Amino acid sequence: MVDPQLGFEGDTTDGFINRLREALGKGSVLTGTDIGSRYYHDLAGKLVAQPRAVVRPRTTEEVSALLRLCHREQVPVTTQGGMTGVVRGALPNANEIVLSMELMNAVEEVDTSSGAAIAQAGAPLQKVQERVEQEGYMFPLDLSARGSCTIGGNISTNAGGNRVIRYGMTRDLILGLEVVTADGTVLQGLRKYIKNNTGIDLKQLFIGSEGILGVVTRAALRIFPASAERQVALCALPSFAQVIAILGLARKHLGGELTAFEVMWNEYYRLTVERVEGVVGPLRAHHPYYVLIEASGDDTDRIHADLEKLLETAMHKNIILDATLSTSNASAAAIWRVRDSSLELARTFPYAARIALDVSLAIDRMEEYVKAIGARIKAIDPGAFAIVFGHAGDGNLHVNLHHEHTPDRRQDLEKLAYQTTSEFGGSISAEHGIGVVKRPYLKMSRTQEEIETMRTLKRALDPNSILNPGRIFTM
Amino acid sequence: MVDPQLGFEGDTTDGFINRLREALGKGSVLTGTDIGSRYYHDLAGKLVAQPRAVVRPRTTEEVSALLRLCHREQVPVTTQGGMTGVVRGALPNANEIVLSMELMNAVEEVDTSSGAAIAQAGAPLQKVQERVEQEGYMFPLDLSARGSCTIGGNISTNAGGNRVIRYGMTRDLILGLEVVTADGTVLQGLRKYIKNNTGIDLKQLFIGSEGILGVVTRAALRIFPASAERQVALCALPSFAQVIAILGLARKHLGGELTAFEVMWNEYYRLTVERVEGVVGPLRAHHPYYVLIEASGDDTDRIHADLEKLLETAMHKNIILDATLSTSNASAAAIWRVRDSSLELARTFPYAARIALDVSLAIDRMEEYVKAIGARIKAIDPGAFAIVFGHAGDGNLHVNLHHEHTPDRRQDLEKLAYQTTSEFGGSISAEHGIGVVKRPYLKMSRTQEEIETMRTLKRALDPNSILNPGRIFTM
Repeated sequence: MVDPQLGFEGDTTDGFINRLREALGKGSVLTGTDIGSRYYHDLAGKLVAQPRAVVRPRTTEEVSALLRLCHREQVPVTTQGGMTGVVRGALPNANEIVLSMELMNAVEEVDTSSGAAIAQAGAPLQKVQERVEQEGYMFPLDLSARGSCTIGGNISTNAGGNRVIRYGMTRDLILGLEVVTADGTVLQGLRKYIKNNTGIDLKQLFIGSEGILGVVTRAALRIFPASAERQVALCALPSFAQVIAILGLARKHLGGELTAFEVMWNEYYRLTVERVEGVVGPLRAHHPYYVLIEASGDDTDRIHADLEKLLETAMHKNIILDATLSTSNASAAAIWRVRDSSLELARTFPYAARIALDVSLAIDRMEEYVKAIGARIKAIDPGAFAIVFGHAGDGNLHVNLHHEHTPDRRQDLEKLAYQTTSEFGGSISAEHGIGVVKRPYLKMSRTQEEIETMRTLKRALDPNSILNPGRIFTM
Repeated sequence: MVDPQLGFEGDTTDGFINRLREALGKGSVLTGTDIGSRYYHDLAGKLVAQPRAVVRPRTTEEVSALLRLCHREQVPVTTQGGMTGVVRGALPNANEIVLSMELMNAVEEVDTSSGAAIAQAGAPLQKVQERVEQEGYMFPLDLSARGSCTIGGNISTNAGGNRVIRYGMTRDLILGLEVVTADGTVLQGLRKYIKNNTGIDLKQLFIGSEGILGVVTRAALRIFPASAERQVALCALPSFAQVIAILGLARKHLGGELTAFEVMWNEYYRLTVERVEGVVGPLRAHHPYYVLIEASGDDTDRIHADLEKLLETAMHKNIILDATLSTSNASAAAIWRVRDSSLELARTFPYAARIALDVSLAIDRMEEYVKAIGARIKAIDPGAFAIVFGHAGDGNLHVNLHHEHTPDRRQDLEKLAYQTTSEFGGSISAEHGIGVVKRPYLKMSRTQEEIETMRTLKRALDPNSILNPGRIFTM
């Protein structure tokens, strides 16, 4: 093994880097001061150790050449997309090569007859969305990091987001993948079929496995005819029982028109309106719960009428205290802005004293769970508090714990939070993944036999353990 | 290895069978004349070689004990569900133990608050459907074999069926699985979360891999609130361009209400009405194409009005020639009966002279593809003809080739058909899987690197190759 420090000194002394440059072309390989800080900083902007090199391939063949070399010489690689993950999965270690997909960012094809778009892994989500929209279609995956996150990152983390209730997770939106495995083998599975039962569905292995089994280079994405109309209601509710009640009503009244159902606890709504610049709260900020409901379809009048009738029924049954209904794209965007500002809100608090939970649990346990977490953290830090929001219709809550006065108690609080999650029958990660941050807690959501089977798969597909080593689990 | 013939002679001489009986209890292990013919006959009722033994476990622990023993002594096992598969995947070889899941057939739980039902693998699909319906919910998977096929079989083959257009394949309906791997390890993943990004999503490996990587013993199935209303329209159309046109209209007019879109070529409709007992054709049988459209929802009036409006628009635009709309559950069932009779229709022709294709391809190539197949087979057998129907909205056609006068030309016809499929960019299996029947053609749909990666996974999870050996590929 080459000394991991060498990359910093000067490239000519690092034989591996020289061989990389030979294989890939000089311009694809950055070292030393050429490595911008964006490749090795965390969410707070704090730098971690500089990686040995950054490689930016332009083709699948270059990715293959890189991995072949790394496999042979047992050099670890971290693959990077938009760096918007929150579990430190893409932060490199000093001995690692960063494989940045940023130059493979094209949307290569939008095939409306098959209902498929082909994108390179480094394409930002929003770029894909916009390109597909040009053809009168839509790619339904949507999350607030849309401007920076990439399709490859979305796939590797099986991103969820705002429309899971109607269109599923990223996994459900993938028709085919082109993947390079650890030894440089290219698995050419870029197919556009919805149905393809021809042996083991290999692509499933690479979706949501955080890059430890292969590098996604291209994807065939499922696209849908765009809805002509999309409108949003925001409701204020007196109790969580009423949140569950309006979810039932919305499913019943809107059926397949229901494309988002998001819940915000009072603290989330109130603090976002107070602290995030440019956010205007369309409802007063003292209500216990807020719910955002989006309906989509082709018939403008019907969408409006359906949402109006839903709100009337809910008002009549005393389910909601107050509500507003968007009347234009602008007012719909203003309502979404509140829900989309979660990261901006979190950034108004110190990064080092914030624990981001992302849990799945049964909806009928959510209220009690949030109460329990809120109460228990105060036993460790009386000033600690929780900001809660999420995709209630999918059984998924985001819980941000803030403990500004006790940044040193992070581990205790984290442990307590995950123990509470486990006690309530919840999963420790609904969307965010495991990365490095949640690795100690993986065994709370997966059995020993499952983790051993993951290791078996890792050994089979990446025998030298070069791909994102130490993410999810250690070997 | 024990002589595969011994099982037929008498059990006491077969040490392995004796050890099995010791491990599992005498009643669980059938041999010799106790083995009913239902464990080893093909779709035509013709018997294959009798298997060495049939084991019928009652618990996951018994499945584990069986596989542990088979793994240790390198004895091959074929897992059986409802035996409705069409690729001979579950037909045993003489040296194999049949693992029949028929006694593990309970629906253990219907949890409406989580939207999940727990069923044992041997539960027939229809039993699951009916149990879930008792709670006002529905399990959307539906296919004509519903009375016999089992949930475990549906999962192992990633069954599609009639509602893929709205609810996806079986894969999309699985929340969690309990699986026993080749060495008897129990992977306890019976979770009810919609979102659970906690490492490699192991269950995906066992869905659609035809039992070669593990035995599914229990499943957490996704269930949905039942629609109050479900109505069906049947249309006659002059050309395939109009089939595509009405699919576009149906998506636009019905949106999320559209729960099935099935197409039948003239021969299918006409011959079904002529030859299948009890089927009444609601429309005259001379039209080129027929399309069945199902809409579901909670508002009876709206469903009817939407379907009516769809038909009016289509009639007005000269897309359809004739149409009928169900007015009751009985008339809806009568329309479905036509489409559901595909197996009964096929059985009116000789089994040995029938080739069942199940292809995925782009909808805009379907018409040309069917014409090409029909013309090309006549070059081999002038009397050969194709009966075509399928799930056009999912890009999936079933093509049954009949060649009664040349049963000996099966291989030539099959090869021709798959070459044509490949030429049109199609997949050789949309729903049915590979099994043994399509194994020679797998390489037309998957690359050499993909098939090698499948072998790598098989070696990693089933090093002694005891689970359904020779299905999908040989090692």
